[in-house]
Amino acid sequence: RVGAGLIEELSINTIRTLSIDAVQQADSGHPGTPMALAPLVYTLWQDFLRFDPEDAIWPNRDRFVLSIGHASMLLYSMLYLTGVKAVNAEYERPGEPAVTLEDIKRFREIGSKCPGHPEYRLTTGVETTTGPLGQGCATSVGMAIAGDWLAKRFNRPRFTMFNYSVYTLCGDGDMMEGVASEAASLAGHLMLGNLCWIYDSNRVTIEGHTDITFSEDVATRFLAYGWNVLRVGDANDTERIAQAIERFRRTNDVPTLIIVESHIGYGSPHKHDTSAAHGEPLGEEEVRLAKRSYGWPEDAKFLVPDGVREHFHAGIGRRGAKLRKAWASMLESYRAKYPELAKELEQMQRRELPDGWDADLPSFPADAKGLATRDSSAKVLNAIAPRYPWLVGGSADLAPSTKTRLTFEQAGDFEADTYGGRNFHFGIREHAMGAILNGLALCKLRPYGSTFLTFSDYMKPPMRLSALMQLPVTFIFSHDSIGLGQDGPTHQPVEQLIALRSIPGLVTLRPADANEVVEAWRVIIGHARQPACLVLSRQALPTLDRKHYASAKGVARGAYVMADAEHGKPEVILIGTGSEVAICAEAYEVLLRDGVAARLVSMPSWELFEQQSEAYRDSVLPPEVTARVSVEAGSVIGWDRYVGDGGAKIGMHTFGSSAPLKDLLHKYGFTLQDVVDAAMKQIERARQKA
Amino acid sequence: RVGAGLIEELSINTIRTLSIDAVQQADSGHPGTPMALAPLVYTLWQDFLRFDPEDAIWPNRDRFVLSIGHASMLLYSMLYLTGVKAVNAEYERPGEPAVTLEDIKRFREIGSKCPGHPEYRLTTGVETTTGPLGQGCATSVGMAIAGDWLAKRFNRPRFTMFNYSVYTLCGDGDMMEGVASEAASLAGHLMLGNLCWIYDSNRVTIEGHTDITFSEDVATRFLAYGWNVLRVGDANDTERIAQAIERFRRTNDVPTLIIVESHIGYGSPHKHDTSAAHGEPLGEEEVRLAKRSYGWPEDAKFLVPDGVREHFHAGIGRRGAKLRKAWASMLESYRAKYPELAKELEQMQRRELPDGWDADLPSFPADAKGLATRDSSAKVLNAIAPRYPWLVGGSADLAPSTKTRLTFEQAGDFEADTYGGRNFHFGIREHAMGAILNGLALCKLRPYGSTFLTFSDYMKPPMRLSALMQLPVTFIFSHDSIGLGQDGPTHQPVEQLIALRSIPGLVTLRPADANEVVEAWRVIIGHARQPACLVLSRQALPTLDRKHYASAKGVARGAYVMADAEHGKPEVILIGTGSEVAICAEAYEVLLRDGVAARLVSMPSWELFEQQSEAYRDSVLPPEVTARVSVEAGSVIGWDRYVGDGGAKIGMHTFGSSAPLKDLLHKYGFTLQDVVDAAMKQIERARQKA
Repeated sequence: RVGAGLIEELSINTIRTLSIDAVQQADSGHPGTPMALAPLVYTLWQDFLRFDPEDAIWPNRDRFVLSIGHASMLLYSMLYLTGVKAVNAEYERPGEPAVTLEDIKRFREIGSKCPGHPEYRLTTGVETTTGPLGQGCATSVGMAIAGDWLAKRFNRPRFTMFNYSVYTLCGDGDMMEGVASEAASLAGHLMLGNLCWIYDSNRVTIEGHTDITFSEDVATRFLAYGWNVLRVGDANDTERIAQAIERFRRTNDVPTLIIVESHIGYGSPHKHDTSAAHGEPLGEEEVRLAKRSYGWPEDAKFLVPDGVREHFHAGIGRRGAKLRKAWASMLESYRAKYPELAKELEQMQRRELPDGWDADLPSFPADAKGLATRDSSAKVLNAIAPRYPWLVGGSADLAPSTKTRLTFEQAGDFEADTYGGRNFHFGIREHAMGAILNGLALCKLRPYGSTFLTFSDYMKPPMRLSALMQLPVTFIFSHDSIGLGQDGPTHQPVEQLIALRSIPGLVTLRPADANEVVEAWRVIIGHARQPACLVLSRQALPTLDRKHYASAKGVARGAYVMADAEHGKPEVILIGTGSEVAICAEAYEVLLRDGVAARLVSMPSWELFEQQSEAYRDSVLPPEVTARVSVEAGSVIGWDRYVGDGGAKIGMHTFGSSAPLKDLLHKYGFTLQDVVDAAMKQIERARQKA
Repeated sequence: RVGAGLIEELSINTIRTLSIDAVQQADSGHPGTPMALAPLVYTLWQDFLRFDPEDAIWPNRDRFVLSIGHASMLLYSMLYLTGVKAVNAEYERPGEPAVTLEDIKRFREIGSKCPGHPEYRLTTGVETTTGPLGQGCATSVGMAIAGDWLAKRFNRPRFTMFNYSVYTLCGDGDMMEGVASEAASLAGHLMLGNLCWIYDSNRVTIEGHTDITFSEDVATRFLAYGWNVLRVGDANDTERIAQAIERFRRTNDVPTLIIVESHIGYGSPHKHDTSAAHGEPLGEEEVRLAKRSYGWPEDAKFLVPDGVREHFHAGIGRRGAKLRKAWASMLESYRAKYPELAKELEQMQRRELPDGWDADLPSFPADAKGLATRDSSAKVLNAIAPRYPWLVGGSADLAPSTKTRLTFEQAGDFEADTYGGRNFHFGIREHAMGAILNGLALCKLRPYGSTFLTFSDYMKPPMRLSALMQLPVTFIFSHDSIGLGQDGPTHQPVEQLIALRSIPGLVTLRPADANEVVEAWRVIIGHARQPACLVLSRQALPTLDRKHYASAKGVARGAYVMADAEHGKPEVILIGTGSEVAICAEAYEVLLRDGVAARLVSMPSWELFEQQSEAYRDSVLPPEVTARVSVEAGSVIGWDRYVGDGGAKIGMHTFGSSAPLKDLLHKYGFTLQDVVDAAMKQIERARQKA
């Protein structure tokens, strides 16, 4: 290190050798980037990061995002060396370390706190799960937005409750991924002065040199986005790195990109600057050679020299503790002066709901004409949001169609000069929107985002991460079937519902009418650690008469009997979701009139239904009633589970087409007559079998 | 129009008014952009596009891509006015028009050739299906790459068989979508001089003015990508437009972006420059006012003034016919001189296979240790490719892991200075890769692309379009389950298989061993109009002894009995896919040894199995055998269909975790004992029921 003392050099090489040894021991992993970037991460953490290892969830801490998640050992080394303490699910800090040397020795082994890629919730100090490239970058934009929003909401004269910075370490892969481009464009537009991406330009990817795929001028591109662009010519030059970070800290009006030229596998005589250093262990002999080049004992493994942890304690540890304590004492005065705001701040941190959030939830009277569920959702959202100040969100340029705008007077728009606004404009950038929502949720806001259901495809990767991280993000998808009509098959979802339902931990809800929308929102808001999809119609749906049909409260159980045969002994069960429940209800009435004992089941959520007891599930779908019909304007895949062997599934088997709704319902078999016929056939089949 | 004569103005206003009237009649659609861009499209088609309306599939035609697919009436107007003739599925041109005035009058109605967004295959002259933003842009990069590849392969001294240009009309949404950014970066890297994007900068989106989301400097960004950037300050200035297109045509070494400043809804006094002109009809009164501003009869509807179609015939029609005929006669001489190449060229156009493409397909001997299916696929791919010259592909920077590199000597790499290469490097840009594959296939190459299965999420939108367009694209996805081990849950697919299976028209294959890989490739190559996913393991799988087990030819039927109980009377059926077939085979042997009558079914493809006759399906899964176990290291959703009510589904219910393979198999219940236990329980259950 240019100009560094012995202890600095020793600390940097400890990061390097812990990473090398862990990968070698696991016989799996990515050693090259930790070797290259140890000086950078050392400098950032030790000299700048406002982070207290004793309290890794201090709300105003700087965020460090390792978008290059494969370089996870960089982060684990830092968590261990700086002595970060674990936080448990109840936000308590019982004193255990977040990562032990034993965890590092068991890198990529079952049960270790050091998995292959950093996992939020599993390991304290990991600010977001990374690995899929581009996601960390885009998520960090959400964290920076959250910082600005929190500052606007909570800061008061002499009370700077929020002014954290977000540092994101990214690589060539992040620079190539479109999601990061989208996010960078928006970050520039929003002038996020608290955001710093540090781009490790090592020019090496898995297939070889970036010359084969990536010759654009990244600096100029980011200038075009409106960023401040800095360059560090040598990743080992910690003074230059420190200068660049200082420049970032003095730049308050636009985001900063620091381009660092580095050498992957630095110190390894044979793998330095090659893709061989990227994703596999160096090998025992090369490990020794690399250690020799660092002036390290060649045969020592997992060596942490005396004084290194003490050095970190005296640096980041002492600075972080001081900052955090000052903040905590400021919070005490703040609480005295602004008790309501302080309460809100603390509720947010624990993901609690504000009192009375649901006091204004509407109830919709029966109405044969009804309204689209996107419209009823707009009403519900606007009934909740005034009472839930940190519920914020927006759309990927479709708010007038998805109806997710907060329309009450104080709502406002989040723009570069109005960071307190609650309506976000993500632009036509669905993928970045998804990741930004994750970033907002990681900073304890309660975010939602919307687009058409078919375009959920554009944002699947961050939705998966929401589920993996158990974040309470709400994805609102309107235009949920061929029911949208004339825009045609590119816009008509077919396979999206099943794709969403198959994501572990994500709850998908497709309400049937306005009152089911109310209950769906109630379920969603009630989940503090689960993302949800709310799937809404473009077309009007009748508001069912709940005096005649069962209460929409049944939504919370995923499926419920909406109307039944006399004595609860149905011959056939009609199961619908969303817009198709109304057709099923019509069919139910026709069958009833014809003396057929039918049961009507509304099934807004498979996931919630699966969480119910077997007894409840059997009460809704009695095993002995095998005549069943499901009706859903989406792929039939998966419905066998609910209609059973030989049950009828009315659904989509192909893509849709461009035509008015009524023609499509006829063409694809979603008419009243189709449902009644299927029910009669099912009854016939069941009788024959009996 | 500045400097235009009467007939030009009349023609331009015909495009405008046809579009306005169609949207008004449909009471649905997007009038504003056709109103703004009619002069541009007029100039491009009439004065430049090398396209013969009489032969819309002439191989060396210029390609026109309407990435702003919502402005579909622009394209339909042109197809009608220039008199494009329809081509049928057998590549014949019986003489009917591609689009009639009647179709335009029935815009967005069922059965019209003018659906809401342009659909490839449905309407001749539509070069690719567009609507989901960004896709047309990225697809056009594939078309440009194909042009360069075709030129390199087929052009000979004095025989310029291919030199077409690709023109892409895009908007603010395309500029914001990450997939277009990825594609633009790659297009710059590859120096695609035949590619011209025309960016309609109207600064209006659905939520309002682009000021609220999009303030980057697009010109500078494209300069950073290495593009030639031009600007036209007034979309009505056809002379300046023509100059810009000429500049593009003289620029052969880099792609060109022409930024056109336009006014959405041009001519509409009240909706001009507003988002109200974007996605809804103008309204009868405003239609009249717009027509008045054009000097058009206010009450005329669908008016095509005398002389307009003749004017187009004399312009694009005559030029196109001349070029196409010259090309056809050149092809005759070419055929005489290069009969093999001419034959190849024609086979490609009809999507026929080269003779003997499968002559070198390997057969793999039984081997208990075996090899990963990614490795056997590499062997098969490299056995096919030398005999299939236009089979080309690559990876999103993972070829060393997905093993999709063509390794034989002449294969080469596709780079800016080696356009004949067959190995493509897409960079870490999965989304653009998917769209580029579509572009290659639209230009009749036979493309494949690869990444890890979990990252199929990044490229879902173009995969959906492959299926909608019925393109023979092969998506190769390795690292197909928790079987990849230590990279952990971000990299371990769980829900991806079911997501792919649910896309209508896409065939997903997950072969169990090397010989199933051979047969899977045979199926894939045999499909001329269907995309396929080939799902491959990272870990070694035993090559099953096909003297003991049934032939792998059964792959073609989607599922087949690999081993059976004596007399074909099983008590229990074990169904596996991919890497889990080996576990099922082991369990089968254990059960056999214990005197249990079991059947072993390998089920590499649900979609192919569903296409079989009911008799065949029942022969594999006899309805009377209700004791069934499915084993697949993915989501269990959808398996009920094959195991039936109460059948056992061994699969994933959560995300995976980072650990060595064997620990994960144990943790998630994929051991031999788990399968045997499930089978015994199933038998018990069936007996109790009987």
